[in-house]
Amino acid sequence: MHILTVLYHHPTDPAAFDQHYRDVHAPMVDPIPGVRSFTYRHTVSLDDGPPPYHLIAEVGFDSLEDLQAGMASEAGQAAVADLPNFASGGTTIFVAHD
Amino acid sequence: MHILTVLYHHPTDPAAFDQHYRDVHAPMVDPIPGVRSFTYRHTVSLDDGPPPYHLIAEVGFDSLEDLQAGMASEAGQAAVADLPNFASGGTTIFVAHD
Repeated sequence: MHILTVLYHHPTDPAAFDQHYRDVHAPMVDPIPGVRSFTYRHTVSLDDGPPPYHLIAEVGFDSLEDLQAGMASEAGQAAVADLPNFASGGTTIFVAHD
Repeated sequence: MHILTVLYHHPTDPAAFDQHYRDVHAPMVDPIPGVRSFTYRHTVSLDDGPPPYHLIAEVGFDSLEDLQAGMASEAGQAAVADLPNFASGGTTIFVAHD
């Protein structure tokens, strides 16, 4: 499995981010061709200070080729194009495989 | 599920890191009380430059309380104490929940 991991840095308006993510962005993932899994998690503030990221999202594909084809598709490009609409803190994105 | 995510920055000797991680560090995770899942993935170098991290590890617990108790246990503390033995690039660690 090749997993596209998106680490969302802290947005300026976390409530607006969360609403957009849940209602607009997350539903854009399943239509991407080749997607086998999709999960996202909110970070937890602990006693040792704020977490380094606001949210982590993981989108799984069977192979790197499927991942690249999926992200190059119309639905994949639409999801990428949506990022500036809510990810005001920026993102750190990478691919990893198990 | 509360997941402890460990992002390993690029080590000075990736081969030594990988060997220690696989043979020594990874086997230290399952004995930690309360661990429900454990996965790790190596990042992939793409055309747009080196990935921001070398490896991502995710350790799942049923609750934040279980996570904190597990990491405070003897086995949890042993795993944390092992980090300086191989994680020469440092780590970024956070907890997130779905």
